[in-house]
Amino acid sequence: MDSATLLAIALAQGYEVHALTIDYGQRHVIEIKRARRIARTYGAKSHLVLSVDLTGIGGSSLTDDIPVPRRRRPKSRTIPSTYVPARNTIFLSIALALAERINARDIFFGANVVDFSGYPDCSPSFIKAFEILARIGTREGALGKARFKIRSPLLYLTKAQIIKKGLSLGVDYGMTHSCYDPGPRGRPCGICDSCRLRLKGFRDAGLRDPLHYASRP
Amino acid sequence: MDSATLLAIALAQGYEVHALTIDYGQRHVIEIKRARRIARTYGAKSHLVLSVDLTGIGGSSLTDDIPVPRRRRPKSRTIPSTYVPARNTIFLSIALALAERINARDIFFGANVVDFSGYPDCSPSFIKAFEILARIGTREGALGKARFKIRSPLLYLTKAQIIKKGLSLGVDYGMTHSCYDPGPRGRPCGICDSCRLRLKGFRDAGLRDPLHYASRP
Repeated sequence: MDSATLLAIALAQGYEVHALTIDYGQRHVIEIKRARRIARTYGAKSHLVLSVDLTGIGGSSLTDDIPVPRRRRPKSRTIPSTYVPARNTIFLSIALALAERINARDIFFGANVVDFSGYPDCSPSFIKAFEILARIGTREGALGKARFKIRSPLLYLTKAQIIKKGLSLGVDYGMTHSCYDPGPRGRPCGICDSCRLRLKGFRDAGLRDPLHYASRP
Repeated sequence: MDSATLLAIALAQGYEVHALTIDYGQRHVIEIKRARRIARTYGAKSHLVLSVDLTGIGGSSLTDDIPVPRRRRPKSRTIPSTYVPARNTIFLSIALALAERINARDIFFGANVVDFSGYPDCSPSFIKAFEILARIGTREGALGKARFKIRSPLLYLTKAQIIKKGLSLGVDYGMTHSCYDPGPRGRPCGICDSCRLRLKGFRDAGLRDPLHYASRP
């Protein structure tokens, strides 16, 4: 949902978008299929699906054979088991490599801190630190020719605001996938953190999520 | 050569070493085989070989089907075609994920800036920036429980000094592999930047490289 909205925002701002999806061994591998379809439908200039096997590292309920948490309180201040160690650092590094390669300067990043997060690698200070690293650690940056920007237009939006923004840009959320732990044929569970947040977002926006859930809380 | 020396240094300093090798689609894939053997021989506690397919990004003579440069002047100030976009940022991010996972605090990094480099992702300021990012972007760092250190004991050593250091710690450089563009059965070419630097290092140290080269300049 966030990535599709991010794509629509970048396109609406006039960017030529080179989409990047990371196959990191996530249990919700269906999101990769959906990402391909969304990138094609909305007109990304290219779409690279790149594999990094983070199951070799483990440490998260998203990559390991441990249960995805249910019914977690949204305002809990702990970091959830769905945190994948250094995941966004790895993702942004790969995005940076791609950006440097294709001469792009703007890296769109769908981080979001409002409704729920607890993920340290989504924070504004993390994004700032990554920009500094990107400037120092790349050919173009070090030569003073490029200044990479991490653009995170979703950072301070609630899920409801993200949904409204996306709908205003024509995003079909029926094409998207958010569930951490989908059932057979990719049906979203309706009860993992990600499904709950999504459903709450639609409720708060006064709308109905077009997806068919295994259950709705 | 640098990685084997780094391993020996970390072990000599009393660290329990969890070795990490990245298979990124490099043409010198033989280095992965050698890394396995070295990690086993010298007593790394574990050795993870993790795949990230950087050929999908390209932009380097190490991953693409473009020639590895020969006879480059060692003091040239340009960044060579063997630079892989954001490679060390990606590598360190993965190392950070592993470190966070196994509760390690020290990440040994074989960067080296003396004899030759031109790689922006080997500089002291890059390393510093990465440490800041690591503190902000990880669970343990953000909770104030961990302060990851990037240890780069080779940073200011010449190749000759690295070789002498390694030999003093019992490293068998006959087991190592440095060539960017090995021939059949992994024989080092003797003329790529990496071979030249290595051979010069042995010469400067007054020693003979134990490897069998296809040619020696």
